[in-house]
Amino acid sequence: MKALYLDENAKLTEVPRPRPAQGEALVRVTTVGICNTDLEIMKGYMNFSGILGHEFVGVVENAATEDLIGKRVVGEINCSCHECEYCRKEMPNHCLNRTVLGILNRNGAFAEYLTLPEENLHIVPDSVSDDSAVFAEPLAAAFRITEQLSIDNLDKIVVLGAGKLGQLISQVLHQVSRNVVSVGRNQWKLELLKELGIRTVHTNEPMERGYADIVVDATGSYDGFNRALELVRPEGTVILKTTVTHPTAFDMSIPVINEVRVMGSRCGPFRPALNALEEGNIIVSPMVTESYELKDIEKALVRASQKDVMKVLVHM
Amino acid sequence: MKALYLDENAKLTEVPRPRPAQGEALVRVTTVGICNTDLEIMKGYMNFSGILGHEFVGVVENAATEDLIGKRVVGEINCSCHECEYCRKEMPNHCLNRTVLGILNRNGAFAEYLTLPEENLHIVPDSVSDDSAVFAEPLAAAFRITEQLSIDNLDKIVVLGAGKLGQLISQVLHQVSRNVVSVGRNQWKLELLKELGIRTVHTNEPMERGYADIVVDATGSYDGFNRALELVRPEGTVILKTTVTHPTAFDMSIPVINEVRVMGSRCGPFRPALNALEEGNIIVSPMVTESYELKDIEKALVRASQKDVMKVLVHM
Repeated sequence: MKALYLDENAKLTEVPRPRPAQGEALVRVTTVGICNTDLEIMKGYMNFSGILGHEFVGVVENAATEDLIGKRVVGEINCSCHECEYCRKEMPNHCLNRTVLGILNRNGAFAEYLTLPEENLHIVPDSVSDDSAVFAEPLAAAFRITEQLSIDNLDKIVVLGAGKLGQLISQVLHQVSRNVVSVGRNQWKLELLKELGIRTVHTNEPMERGYADIVVDATGSYDGFNRALELVRPEGTVILKTTVTHPTAFDMSIPVINEVRVMGSRCGPFRPALNALEEGNIIVSPMVTESYELKDIEKALVRASQKDVMKVLVHM
Repeated sequence: MKALYLDENAKLTEVPRPRPAQGEALVRVTTVGICNTDLEIMKGYMNFSGILGHEFVGVVENAATEDLIGKRVVGEINCSCHECEYCRKEMPNHCLNRTVLGILNRNGAFAEYLTLPEENLHIVPDSVSDDSAVFAEPLAAAFRITEQLSIDNLDKIVVLGAGKLGQLISQVLHQVSRNVVSVGRNQWKLELLKELGIRTVHTNEPMERGYADIVVDATGSYDGFNRALELVRPEGTVILKTTVTHPTAFDMSIPVINEVRVMGSRCGPFRPALNALEEGNIIVSPMVTESYELKDIEKALVRASQKDVMKVLVHM
């Protein structure tokens, strides 16, 4: 089969079709999305080599559970061992022996086929198109915030970053608080949020220090955290979604004096994500900038790294 | 009266005796403690000038509330405006207009007399000596952790730093969890904790990555936070007690991937601190290395900055 294999470079190559291990399903991939994490991994993040990609929709070709066969699915990307202390604590996403689709010790989704444990798969509702369902994984990551934090309808929330993940986070939090402000540097990205009734502020506009009860850093940039510390109120919360390996320097006395709470946030629950897509509560189609075919996936990756795009999809 | 006044240098000088404003009491100071924050302030932290010092015991000489007069008291150091949004939210320690004894826009305790709002004062139980009661303020800061975090009896807790504050924190947390480990670089400081039945580990001994449910950084050093991130488990909590203004560089992807929660922690409740001293649950006397008289307070400050001391007290 054809797959985008990352070694020293990322190249479309012919590789053997994967064979599902016990408990795994074979999935024929139909659509994939390119995430900033893919671009970071290509630059060396996670020290990964193998087939890249973790946002996908596909059809189950083979599985022990017959009901799954022929079904359209999306999939959770963390594969856990069921045996370590974190698996026993029901924290499988923190499994000490985990593999992660296209990120850690497991071939990913930029291929004609992939394998995943059946337990990782979620059937996509008929009314949700492939081009929407492919957002399930990052949307689940946005919903993770609502699992970690109890949010009040009146909480003042600032989402830093109006890129792909920032847009999904702003939309999710806009459902639980009427005081969401999305801050970004690209006016056209902010326009997409405005059309959904979400307040936006350009990065260059001044904002009141300590304005927000909750600040989410989804900038993907090393300076997002310091901005978040400026904007959050005493005893407020900063949610970190940015995984930059560039070391970030910050003045520790600020979070101590203001008793700020900072929470890292990674992968989230697929069920509410798929429900929200089905019910039309989260709108993703305006975020799709361009679609490519698998044969042009290398071009798609170059395109996804440019500033004037949002989500780039690849159809197999 | 005599007072240690910090301007460009810190000098014992003659200054006018303070006059209490409305709602304030006049306190004749009997004993003060030197805190690392005092030493940081002398180096420029908080940009403070005025009378230094915030750990004290004294006797009320004058107050509108007659019952207070003649009583031995300790005092909360944050003086709030009662009007700003944080005062209205019952978060007076985060009052936007606050003054802080010997730290922010308010003369401190290294003097024969000080003034504080009556509401800040707590009467010291008869059985608690001056030399113990002077620990009420830092001990309250240690108890703050138990207000911010619900701690389980089985939680594995690491306290980084076995200095003055680290010792108090280890003792407080030792009361709520039987799995407290205190990590420090000075063997003699660790010995004090061992005598109280607290497990200790020397900084140079290796510790298992992700060992702890909770790590408290009380190192007072800019590298404490990175050590804490190594030792805390996925979805664990790091409590920051260190206020170093030296910017700390850290790899943000670690707390994000591990979904670590980081909480700044500052001042705390005096009531449980005084109770613990009265009931003998917290032992502070072995921490007093030396005592000076007010006339020698400049020497006392030099001594407090040396490595082979713990708490230095000054008697007025």
